[in-house]
Amino acid sequence: MPHPVSLDTLNTLDRDGFVAALDGVFEHAPWVAQAAFAHAPFDTVSALHNGLMAAVWARPEAERVAFVAAHPDLAGKAARAGDIAAASVSEQAGLGLDRLSDAEFARFERLNAAYRARFGFPFVICVRRQTRDALLDVFEARLLQGREAELATALVEIGHITALRLVERVEGPGPPKVHGRLSTHVLDTHKGGPAQGVRVELFEVGATARALLAEAVTNEDGRTDAPLISGAPLRAGRYELVFHIGAYFRARGLDLPGTAFLDTVPIRFGIAEPEGHYHVPLVVTPWSYSTYRGS
Amino acid sequence: MPHPVSLDTLNTLDRDGFVAALDGVFEHAPWVAQAAFAHAPFDTVSALHNGLMAAVWARPEAERVAFVAAHPDLAGKAARAGDIAAASVSEQAGLGLDRLSDAEFARFERLNAAYRARFGFPFVICVRRQTRDALLDVFEARLLQGREAELATALVEIGHITALRLVERVEGPGPPKVHGRLSTHVLDTHKGGPAQGVRVELFEVGATARALLAEAVTNEDGRTDAPLISGAPLRAGRYELVFHIGAYFRARGLDLPGTAFLDTVPIRFGIAEPEGHYHVPLVVTPWSYSTYRGS
Amino acid sequence: MPHPVSLDTLNTLDRDGFVAALDGVFEHAPWVAQAAFAHAPFDTVSALHNGLMAAVWARPEAERVAFVAAHPDLAGKAARAGDIAAASVSEQAGLGLDRLSDAEFARFERLNAAYRARFGFPFVICVRRQTRDALLDVFEARLLQGREAELATALVEIGHITALRLVERVEGPGPPKVHGRLSTHVLDTHKGGPAQGVRVELFEVGATARALLAEAVTNEDGRTDAPLISGAPLRAGRYELVFHIGAYFRARGLDLPGTAFLDTVPIRFGIAEPEGHYHVPLVVTPWSYSTYRGS
Amino acid sequence: MPHPVSLDTLNTLDRDGFVAALDGVFEHAPWVAQAAFAHAPFDTVSALHNGLMAAVWARPEAERVAFVAAHPDLAGKAARAGDIAAASVSEQAGLGLDRLSDAEFARFERLNAAYRARFGFPFVICVRRQTRDALLDVFEARLLQGREAELATALVEIGHITALRLVERVEGPGPPKVHGRLSTHVLDTHKGGPAQGVRVELFEVGATARALLAEAVTNEDGRTDAPLISGAPLRAGRYELVFHIGAYFRARGLDLPGTAFLDTVPIRFGIAEPEGHYHVPLVVTPWSYSTYRGS
Repeated sequence: MPHPVSLDTLNTLDRDGFVAALDGVFEHAPWVAQAAFAHAPFDTVSALHNGLMAAVWARPEAERVAFVAAHPDLAGKAARAGDIAAASVSEQAGLGLDRLSDAEFARFERLNAAYRARFGFPFVICVRRQTRDALLDVFEARLLQGREAELATALVEIGHITALRLVERVEGPGPPKVHGRLSTHVLDTHKGGPAQGVRVELFEVGATARALLAEAVTNEDGRTDAPLISGAPLRAGRYELVFHIGAYFRARGLDLPGTAFLDTVPIRFGIAEPEGHYHVPLVVTPWSYSTYRGS
Repeated sequence: MPHPVSLDTLNTLDRDGFVAALDGVFEHAPWVAQAAFAHAPFDTVSALHNGLMAAVWARPEAERVAFVAAHPDLAGKAARAGDIAAASVSEQAGLGLDRLSDAEFARFERLNAAYRARFGFPFVICVRRQTRDALLDVFEARLLQGREAELATALVEIGHITALRLVERVEGPGPPKVHGRLSTHVLDTHKGGPAQGVRVELFEVGATARALLAEAVTNEDGRTDAPLISGAPLRAGRYELVFHIGAYFRARGLDLPGTAFLDTVPIRFGIAEPEGHYHVPLVVTPWSYSTYRGS
Repeated sequence: MPHPVSLDTLNTLDRDGFVAALDGVFEHAPWVAQAAFAHAPFDTVSALHNGLMAAVWARPEAERVAFVAAHPDLAGKAARAGDIAAASVSEQAGLGLDRLSDAEFARFERLNAAYRARFGFPFVICVRRQTRDALLDVFEARLLQGREAELATALVEIGHITALRLVERVEGPGPPKVHGRLSTHVLDTHKGGPAQGVRVELFEVGATARALLAEAVTNEDGRTDAPLISGAPLRAGRYELVFHIGAYFRARGLDLPGTAFLDTVPIRFGIAEPEGHYHVPLVVTPWSYSTYRGS
Repeated sequence: MPHPVSLDTLNTLDRDGFVAALDGVFEHAPWVAQAAFAHAPFDTVSALHNGLMAAVWARPEAERVAFVAAHPDLAGKAARAGDIAAASVSEQAGLGLDRLSDAEFARFERLNAAYRARFGFPFVICVRRQTRDALLDVFEARLLQGREAELATALVEIGHITALRLVERVEGPGPPKVHGRLSTHVLDTHKGGPAQGVRVELFEVGATARALLAEAVTNEDGRTDAPLISGAPLRAGRYELVFHIGAYFRARGLDLPGTAFLDTVPIRFGIAEPEGHYHVPLVVTPWSYSTYRGS
């Protein structure tokens, strides 16, 4: 990836320099930056991104379709072939879409074929905002949409994709909000204070398997030193936090039954807003707990 | 199993009749009933059971050991051979101890051998009060006890075994408390009333697998029509209740995100008192829940 | 009050006997029972009450107005004069409407006069379903209604008044639901069981004062031996439960700060359904609590 | 009050300058600063305060008693006379101890007399760490202590008094912790996010009256823009937060009964640690709420 450029610098460039600096944000479509250049300079990185997307939305439908059509298939042959020249393809690798089983590859092939047959352009989605399970659900849901709505949805997704690329490429004030945050907090209402030393695990919960994403131990404020997820979109999907509170209360010297009422406490929750803040606290005694979407 | 006899009738029998009526409550030990007969009549079934156990405790240690030693091995060859003539053996079938894999059978054989070598009598436990996982944990823990404490523990377990048999054999007032109860209740604090129509599943959670024990749908009072477990001891062990509250709130017409914050809510808890009442309610909105050991 | 009569007996009476047995349920309106008699016998007390009210609703508007107009003023001169011959008047005494201060009396006089001037009939309300504060709020709200809606509201209130009288007069199956219930339950999630020995006070909360309605101590199940209110409508209005949990936790031997975080816990709540069941539990530790409208 | 001096500057002063700069921190006792000067320079303001107090503790008992005896009576004639020359006296004004009724003045006079008779020195307490009610409770409790413990308690209180004065007089790193903080947070689990626009009142709850201390409205994060109390010790005592959640939920357009189940929610709590952080959140729906000592 090229070095980031500052928004100030970008604002001083001529048209060719401006277009070159943004090369790769929109794949195979230098005309986007060319059109947006007319509105330079930009006060914020968000304004720049809005200007770029506005150039897309301004085109007649046939050109918008052609623009979408220039994107590679999701989990398609390019991904399998490791053609990481295309930015989309390397982003797909984050979901393991370049390492599908034959059965999974066949399923994506079927969905891609059905989608192209129905809409005449490839399925585009910002893969960095989805878990693999959520991606397949969304794929199937979007196959049922009308063509106009689906074209608009594809452009909105390209907005997410390019915003993520842009914040890595251009530094400056007012960046678009592309990152989410997941945090937790454990309050011990048996002693009346934060619970320090509780092991917390975060799993992504798929239809058939769970994957450990993060593991931490609460500090003296009952929080983890860093958010469980930050600096990236929260992938829409299903998750589970597991709090090892049996071990915590035993370490505090409480006399619990051999088989404690509460040992590992699972909190299963869904994320629907990849740029949101999900705060999922646990208020706990050896005999009770509560949780809620906090802030 | 013979027909139950009433306590009133039992109190009118002569010694031989009394002993015959209680045949099988204490295996291979008609002397227990013979000794207890001296204290007849009994006001309650509990008093009868206490009288029987007192006859055991009154014997010198060597006889108590011989008494324990008359019990079959746990998950031993008799169980495997399907020798259901012995009451202990048919009770073991409830835990699947007659259907062990070769590896499991070998593990029990090793534990049984170690136990006999250490204490000189077989391991006795009331299997109807334990899950299979809990049973193995207890077995290993009891191997570490001193011999005197272990002999006492074996007699306490025989007390549990025989109380369960006695309440099935003798009808009358004041039976010993041998059954536990597990119940739940779902309160919807989004609408301010009981949650009707919530699917609830109860699983036993083993070290490597989960088994569905019960399934129910809440009624108009937010409860299940019958307790999730009743009429039997609650097997000590680990459990999970799963509440399908996402489906419930959608059925109520709430506009939730595609990936709802809460969909299936798992409550994982341990049972340590087989004769206790465990009430595990869920107080829930689409964005929060709490649970506690209730009453 | 005359002795209750059974529904069976009532169903055997002739018209004059039937009307005489129900004398006083509808004040100054024997024609109500006369008309309902045509539909005898009645299977349930509810069916009887419905039959009586249906006779009222069947009349043309002018007669319904005349029927309402036969009721005495609320907190009017009759109440002040202690004219307890009228059932309505003795019921008003329950709210202390016969013991108003001069200022309060004047306020009721003004409201009564405004109401009569607007609608042409007196304000009728089932006083046994209201606190005094709620009554005044409702009075002012109803002054703003249209005449047709207000006439209907007056008849609905007469339905409440007469149902309460009827269940005291006629014994039989299927009585109309005229009573509510207020109950509580204290769960101690510090120890993991019901909180026994917690003093609980129930206050009615008025605009300017609070009145102690009930006081109880929780039993071994964490409940009060009897509901805090039952056997009567719950008067619509505002209430406060006060739980003395500081004293409870100290009695359990917990080492709390001199000024405990929680000492007396007030739960302030409103009742809007006089025939409903309000269950207001407290789930509490020395450092936390929660409450909800339960069931 | 003189301008603050920096710790750096203080560390450069000679003995007379050092003593002069700290004049008034310890009333009528320049020898404290004189003795502490031997340990200058000080790295932190805490170290300075520890050095000053160590000089007091080092003295023989008779001198410590004389030191305590130099303090004015609490709520005594000096306070009434408005003798604000003495720092203690002006601090007492914060509790209204200069505006006592005759009965209250008489009560303090009796307590002061009893205390002096028992211990031979005046009652000293850091009034800025107490509510008036708590102060009287503490006064009566301390009258029951042994003389040695009471002398130590008086010096600890002088430590609190002088630490508060010192942080206003000397600026620098590592100040002693003399301030507490009270904060709140309202989470709406009906909608699944922070509750914005909830009016919150904070009252001090005395034996006979309540005083409004602060009032705020929650912001878009469900918090108040500033802590309810900060920049001062939290006076030990009893408090009540009142959350106007009925108005909040109506403003959100919820269809609640005329008499809502929850309207104003009072949370009554005690503060025992004047330098602590008390976070008292409300997690609320129209039908439920919970609170706890948070962090």
